[in-house]
Amino acid sequence: MRTKTLSTLHQLLKNRFNKFFQTFYPIHSYTNLCKKHPAWGSNKKHKNIILQNFYLEGMADSKVEEILTPLRANVKEQGDLVRKLKESGAPDIEVKKAVVELKARKKKLEDKELSLAPNLATFDRARMEDLLKRRFFYDQSFAIYGGIAGQYDFGPMGCAFKSNFLQSWRQHFVLEEQMLEVDASILTPEPVLKASGHVDRFADLMVKDLKTGECFRLDHLIKSHLEVLCADKKTSPEVKAECEDIVIKLDGMNKDEMANILKKFNVKSPLTGNELSEPIEFNLMFSTQIGPSGLIKGFLRPETAQGIFVNFKRLLEFNQGKLPFAAAQIGNAFRNEISPRSGLIRVREFTMAEIEHFVDPLDKSHPKFDSVKDIHLVLYSACNQMDGKAAEKKTIGTAVEEGLVANSTLGYFMARIQLFLVKCGVDPNKLRFRQHMNNEMAHYACDCWDAECLTSYGWIECVGCADRSAYDLTQHTEATNVKLTAERKLTPPKDVSVAEAVPNKQKLGKTFKKDAAIIAKALERMELANIEEMERNFKSDGKYILTAENKQFTLDEDMIEVKRYQQIRYIEEFIPSVIEPSFGVGRIMYAIFEHNFKMRENDEQRTYMSLPAIVAPIKCSILPLSRNIEFQSFIKILSSAFTKSDVSHKIDDSSGSIGRRYARTDEIAIPYGVTIDFDTLQTPHSVTLRERDSMNQVRIPLDEVAAIVHNLSYNKDSWENIEKKYPKFEQQDSK
Amino acid sequence: MRTKTLSTLHQLLKNRFNKFFQTFYPIHSYTNLCKKHPAWGSNKKHKNIILQNFYLEGMADSKVEEILTPLRANVKEQGDLVRKLKESGAPDIEVKKAVVELKARKKKLEDKELSLAPNLATFDRARMEDLLKRRFFYDQSFAIYGGIAGQYDFGPMGCAFKSNFLQSWRQHFVLEEQMLEVDASILTPEPVLKASGHVDRFADLMVKDLKTGECFRLDHLIKSHLEVLCADKKTSPEVKAECEDIVIKLDGMNKDEMANILKKFNVKSPLTGNELSEPIEFNLMFSTQIGPSGLIKGFLRPETAQGIFVNFKRLLEFNQGKLPFAAAQIGNAFRNEISPRSGLIRVREFTMAEIEHFVDPLDKSHPKFDSVKDIHLVLYSACNQMDGKAAEKKTIGTAVEEGLVANSTLGYFMARIQLFLVKCGVDPNKLRFRQHMNNEMAHYACDCWDAECLTSYGWIECVGCADRSAYDLTQHTEATNVKLTAERKLTPPKDVSVAEAVPNKQKLGKTFKKDAAIIAKALERMELANIEEMERNFKSDGKYILTAENKQFTLDEDMIEVKRYQQIRYIEEFIPSVIEPSFGVGRIMYAIFEHNFKMRENDEQRTYMSLPAIVAPIKCSILPLSRNIEFQSFIKILSSAFTKSDVSHKIDDSSGSIGRRYARTDEIAIPYGVTIDFDTLQTPHSVTLRERDSMNQVRIPLDEVAAIVHNLSYNKDSWENIEKKYPKFEQQDSK
Repeated sequence: MRTKTLSTLHQLLKNRFNKFFQTFYPIHSYTNLCKKHPAWGSNKKHKNIILQNFYLEGMADSKVEEILTPLRANVKEQGDLVRKLKESGAPDIEVKKAVVELKARKKKLEDKELSLAPNLATFDRARMEDLLKRRFFYDQSFAIYGGIAGQYDFGPMGCAFKSNFLQSWRQHFVLEEQMLEVDASILTPEPVLKASGHVDRFADLMVKDLKTGECFRLDHLIKSHLEVLCADKKTSPEVKAECEDIVIKLDGMNKDEMANILKKFNVKSPLTGNELSEPIEFNLMFSTQIGPSGLIKGFLRPETAQGIFVNFKRLLEFNQGKLPFAAAQIGNAFRNEISPRSGLIRVREFTMAEIEHFVDPLDKSHPKFDSVKDIHLVLYSACNQMDGKAAEKKTIGTAVEEGLVANSTLGYFMARIQLFLVKCGVDPNKLRFRQHMNNEMAHYACDCWDAECLTSYGWIECVGCADRSAYDLTQHTEATNVKLTAERKLTPPKDVSVAEAVPNKQKLGKTFKKDAAIIAKALERMELANIEEMERNFKSDGKYILTAENKQFTLDEDMIEVKRYQQIRYIEEFIPSVIEPSFGVGRIMYAIFEHNFKMRENDEQRTYMSLPAIVAPIKCSILPLSRNIEFQSFIKILSSAFTKSDVSHKIDDSSGSIGRRYARTDEIAIPYGVTIDFDTLQTPHSVTLRERDSMNQVRIPLDEVAAIVHNLSYNKDSWENIEKKYPKFEQQDSK
Repeated sequence: MRTKTLSTLHQLLKNRFNKFFQTFYPIHSYTNLCKKHPAWGSNKKHKNIILQNFYLEGMADSKVEEILTPLRANVKEQGDLVRKLKESGAPDIEVKKAVVELKARKKKLEDKELSLAPNLATFDRARMEDLLKRRFFYDQSFAIYGGIAGQYDFGPMGCAFKSNFLQSWRQHFVLEEQMLEVDASILTPEPVLKASGHVDRFADLMVKDLKTGECFRLDHLIKSHLEVLCADKKTSPEVKAECEDIVIKLDGMNKDEMANILKKFNVKSPLTGNELSEPIEFNLMFSTQIGPSGLIKGFLRPETAQGIFVNFKRLLEFNQGKLPFAAAQIGNAFRNEISPRSGLIRVREFTMAEIEHFVDPLDKSHPKFDSVKDIHLVLYSACNQMDGKAAEKKTIGTAVEEGLVANSTLGYFMARIQLFLVKCGVDPNKLRFRQHMNNEMAHYACDCWDAECLTSYGWIECVGCADRSAYDLTQHTEATNVKLTAERKLTPPKDVSVAEAVPNKQKLGKTFKKDAAIIAKALERMELANIEEMERNFKSDGKYILTAENKQFTLDEDMIEVKRYQQIRYIEEFIPSVIEPSFGVGRIMYAIFEHNFKMRENDEQRTYMSLPAIVAPIKCSILPLSRNIEFQSFIKILSSAFTKSDVSHKIDDSSGSIGRRYARTDEIAIPYGVTIDFDTLQTPHSVTLRERDSMNQVRIPLDEVAAIVHNLSYNKDSWENIEKKYPKFEQQDSK
């Protein structure tokens, strides 16, 4: 097969590609993509190498599947067991154990899949990080003071990229859907986060060095200890096998299980050899005191969502009481990670962009779903994960129809998320939506899909898209007694039997004193069913035990009178459900960096960033060919024209060769470059315009260039079109 | 004089206005302004009232001056005393006392001036706050939990305004000057803020209720206590006078002086009557622990500037070593105010936008100064403040030439700040630049001008514009031993005598053990003068006492060898100076709200916000005349055309009358409104377009409207021009 001619290969590849892209992004074609991504075909020799790789990769597919088959079967076996246990109502602890084993098998399968995945380009993380640091996209915060782990500062290039990315997000989501954007406080008083569950549940396990106080995240510590043990020649094969097994299952273990491992393997502090404490639950929120008295405990918010929920009433009112509507927020959140790692992926301070789309739980359909229903997504369902199957490509329309994705609002957002990520530079080949399995879903969610990007750290969660149901609004309603509800019209109106438990205040007061108020409140909120239960209890036992605010009260029949009447209701109140797409901005940026870090084909030393123009930190460079004094006035003309057209630009009139200066602008992802040369001095004045990825150049009249670059930068024109319209230019060294 | 005809008055006023605006903003004319601000002349009756007010105001000017003259003289007398004391080298304590008295007199003058100031419109803060709350521009954070003082959430309208404001800021400063924008961490480790001076000096005085722990800001407490005393009929005139005197001088008092007042007046807790603690210095930074060990103390940054300074080396490198350059940052900062008040003006969590422009201290000129030199600013110089004189209007060119503003870079930014503020809606009549007096300037600054806006809270500082000299970079260099310097070329090169103090490491080590390294480092950094002093000491005493890292070391002659040689230097290192314009975003927004809160002339109930389109939260409303089903398709066409043209818009198809719906959109500052009526259904399709401030309407072809509103919204076209071009429309009730 290797002897097939390259042109046949080309044809094969072209078909494969076009099929893929036509389903994903009908506007793309192989030809267009080759233009955009020079590595995919701008140069004959290189194209052939790429083609061969693709071809061999295709050939490899069947071999890969051969290796994966037993692993897949392994997962399915365990998945079936979990299902069976659940169906048969087995004890919780047995289900949990089986799930831990299932996760372990899934991880083995995924690790193998990743290790066999063909790398389109051989990605070199160290070189990319060098570029990002050297050109100050981002770097460690407070480095001159020794730095703090898990904190990063974005430099001019990272900050401009971030700001363009967020502006695109606003455009794509807030403006398009007319969402209500808010900007809420970061410092949050304790009761709010108590209600949301963060005070009690937002914790990781850690142990402390008993002498130095140094802390270690428990799972990381066990993992590295066992890995060292495994690497030791003296360790027996049985112990090695046990260690490997533990490492795989760590993720699902609880506090006691981990504590036992610590004891069994006699784990000490890796830094000092000192004894370690018992595992401690460490809350990941940063705490502080608000106000001078030290009496108001507050936290830095761990997510931006709560700032929307506590404003629900105001937002609903702003929306004139109508549902559905979405609120959005961009802002910083904080998590005091025990041991931050993996660069931008696990940090202590990060920017989130969150949407809370409030809907009537009886109707979670989205009015604009039809506009996205034919978009293909790679879906990795919980079911496929349990069966050891691969992810599947499907239109979101089919997925919602089949009930795989819970409702069309969730589906609508998933499709819109994909469109957005790809527009901003995520490689569609390295993007999938993974459904949470029942056991990993947050307590409040009823369906959840994570948009995951494939990076050198594996698949990382970049956007969560969850149906949080009515959890949060219910929690805040209970905590504050402020009803966070909406109303729906009843058509036709309902004639309902109402029962009301009216307290005899005098008697209540006599018996319960201050607590009478609590009881009265509880009675007020009693539903029909509870009232009827109370009446039964009065009949049978002559008393009823009421629970309110964690206290129990024994009520006598003469303390309560039940009033019954009919009522015609025109509206009914309900607590809305919320669908939440939640974007981790730093993580997405990191994935985009990886997906766009490229090397020039003939010169591996020349690396560059192929960020899409819409998010590129700077849209255009201005490069005079030399430091000739006559070029100065043209620099000024261009700079002011660009400023007027909102085109961010960078002038590089340093003395390097034009080629070296282009390379420098390629490194910081500047998509377009204008060169002022001696022909510029002639009338009619003209300049050359170069595109970063293809390195092609055209010659353009001076007074047209600002508008052209503006249109190119904001997706209002294509480079292909410009190349057709203006004469090609080949004189200077555009590389 | 009152009998003058109104037309004469009109003429007088027109001249007065035109003179003012031609100097400030040559593009404006009285006629244009009347168009923009209907209250200034769109209706004859109202115009006449306004004119009369202006006229009377003009007449009043001389009376006002009559009242102010003795107060001005009072200030000048004290200002002269302060100058004299300083010149004669009087003891510090005497100068300080005189300054306190000077400030007190200044305050009396300013209070009187404000009380006499003519109010162009009678501003009603309660009504404005009601509008801002009701339409959710902003409101107290966590209100359903009882709220926290000094924290606000921006709702959809406030958030969109803020986001547009910040985008304009980026456009006006970052893009225009090609500044290096960064996005640095909020959580800051203690050593950074120790070096910057915040750990030691960023504090307010407070006292605690000894029983409840309740805290009170000391100056606020004294003030309110004495005011209550003054209001009491039983208080003697002497005590009253004393109280008034103290209140005026409070600002300049130190801890002991205030403690004495507490004792003298026997001040107790105003809430409980309990005893109070001694005054305590309360640091205004929020503290927390970074990482789980509790060992790394951190603070929420109190300003964003430090995040730029600690990145200076990287930024200079990014700029290829060249000066001047400016870095910029937009971000949140936090101050744990003891008792927040005055709405958005004194809060605990706020957004800042800061610029740090680094320059060579030998050349603080700005290359683009010429482009702004003719702009007039209202300058309230330190000198005028000391002399009790009023602020003066001057071109910034003159001010720099006279040496009033320290250098042209500072001047350039002051002019650019004014252009920006006015573009975003600050009333130029309520804007001034006030120079810090020597005694109030921060320890690091060498000149500082605050852009102050006049609001119902008085003149409030909105933008600080300071020459911070080399203070911060020097501090961080000293704290970290990382040189934060730039280089300048020496032309011609300098032939310099160099002396180097070379330690005898063996001998040092023997005597000082570990500390030898500290000494060696200190020797390395010794300047020529210090080395010569050391040599003299060796000769006279045989020893030299070196201070390093807060320790003293006695050195013998044989521990050090001084090497001398000649060296030709081509460059020299220096620590750059920094000019810092620092914007308090919430305060500016608040001033803009006040300056743009208007009432319709014939209906005081109808209030609206006349925010400039460029910062208005939403650019356009779409209002179908009725709920007629035929209008639906046009709503969709318009909405998608607006989205495509980046025009944020709001559809209001609720059932209210068109007039009522317009009023609702006026409240949230939507500058343009499109109405779909029955004529829209006819071909060629057309709609009406209404401008908020004039309430004028024109009829426009359907397919042109999106582009027109886009251009109007981004200052690319003017309403005046549109009115000329399209037929006026008067049928519907546009009010």
